[in-house]
Amino acid sequence: MTPPSSTATSTHEESVRTRPRVEGEREREILEATLETLVELGYDKLSFDAVAGAAKASKATLYRRWPAKVDLVVDALELMLGVEADRFPDTGTLRGDLISQACAKGGLADDQPVKVFGSLMNAMHRDRELHDAIMTRLIAPKMASAVHIFRAAQQRGEVGPGADLDLLARLLPAISIHEAMLTGSHPSQDRLVTLVDSVVLPACAATVQRD
Amino acid sequence: MTPPSSTATSTHEESVRTRPRVEGEREREILEATLETLVELGYDKLSFDAVAGAAKASKATLYRRWPAKVDLVVDALELMLGVEADRFPDTGTLRGDLISQACAKGGLADDQPVKVFGSLMNAMHRDRELHDAIMTRLIAPKMASAVHIFRAAQQRGEVGPGADLDLLARLLPAISIHEAMLTGSHPSQDRLVTLVDSVVLPACAATVQRD
Repeated sequence: MTPPSSTATSTHEESVRTRPRVEGEREREILEATLETLVELGYDKLSFDAVAGAAKASKATLYRRWPAKVDLVVDALELMLGVEADRFPDTGTLRGDLISQACAKGGLADDQPVKVFGSLMNAMHRDRELHDAIMTRLIAPKMASAVHIFRAAQQRGEVGPGADLDLLARLLPAISIHEAMLTGSHPSQDRLVTLVDSVVLPACAATVQRD
Repeated sequence: MTPPSSTATSTHEESVRTRPRVEGEREREILEATLETLVELGYDKLSFDAVAGAAKASKATLYRRWPAKVDLVVDALELMLGVEADRFPDTGTLRGDLISQACAKGGLADDQPVKVFGSLMNAMHRDRELHDAIMTRLIAPKMASAVHIFRAAQQRGEVGPGADLDLLARLLPAISIHEAMLTGSHPSQDRLVTLVDSVVLPACAATVQRD
């Protein structure tokens, strides 16, 4: 086995240095402009032109960093959802972990995701590439961290050994998203606590009694 | 109090007789073509031209019956959801009523609504008139019949007197729609029974214990 070629590495570094790159705060501004444009126009009508205008950037700058619309949009969604934020809380109780995660940035008490995903639903149904990118890069890590919480609860005996952890992990997002769609606004932190106490914990308790 | 004017009535009937009307089976065909066009194009791109083409009808015929796109679409949704179908089942148990309603035409085990509502989400967020028409004519009667089931259960003691019936009534739709969005297909009848047993009934039982 040969090690990675140092020539290739330095060539790559040079090419990075010689091209203006979108990074750090500037990248964040562009991604935030992408989210605003998405809510305003929807995915189908979102263009690099529109984002460039909103972000006061050149289209060429955007294309260098994001070759296709799906790349730009999924990066923007990732920023919004703070995919790495509070993935594995450890408060010692299922109730505490659920509330901690829901109230973190990009969690269910955050209002931006509801508006943004509302503007993506239609496109997600019809655009396989967008659907798969969202599932892989956003939903799968969210689900994994939710399931992690329930698995820890299972080890403490708060959830029965035969429970469907995927189903339990989906309850809070499902009800929150549904309420947000019906009412047009995301659930407050108090409402999330009510949902945890009146739906999620009883469903968990039922798995303990059943087993 | 005077009875409704017979002159006004006969004038109305005459005007109905002298204009070619879309009725019965023909109306149903046009509304089904509307649903197909909606899934194919989304609400924003759906036009009377497109529906006329799909239904082999003239645009003038459509406009006479449905003055605006929102009227045509909401009538089509009403047909799909069978708003009057199994609104008030009476099997004697909450479990039986929930399963009966979910498995009726236009219920949660029906796959068409998932696809159709997926194509409407974006527009619903941005188009107030469409949103309000859907809420008033479709969601409100659905919710009313779901709440009816839980109120009957409350009278039988299956649900506690202080329970939030609106929340309980939303659980099954919320989880079904969320699973459909994640997996791309609607829950089967078996899956709906699992959701009733592992989520809805435990949440109801918790309201009895709590009160």
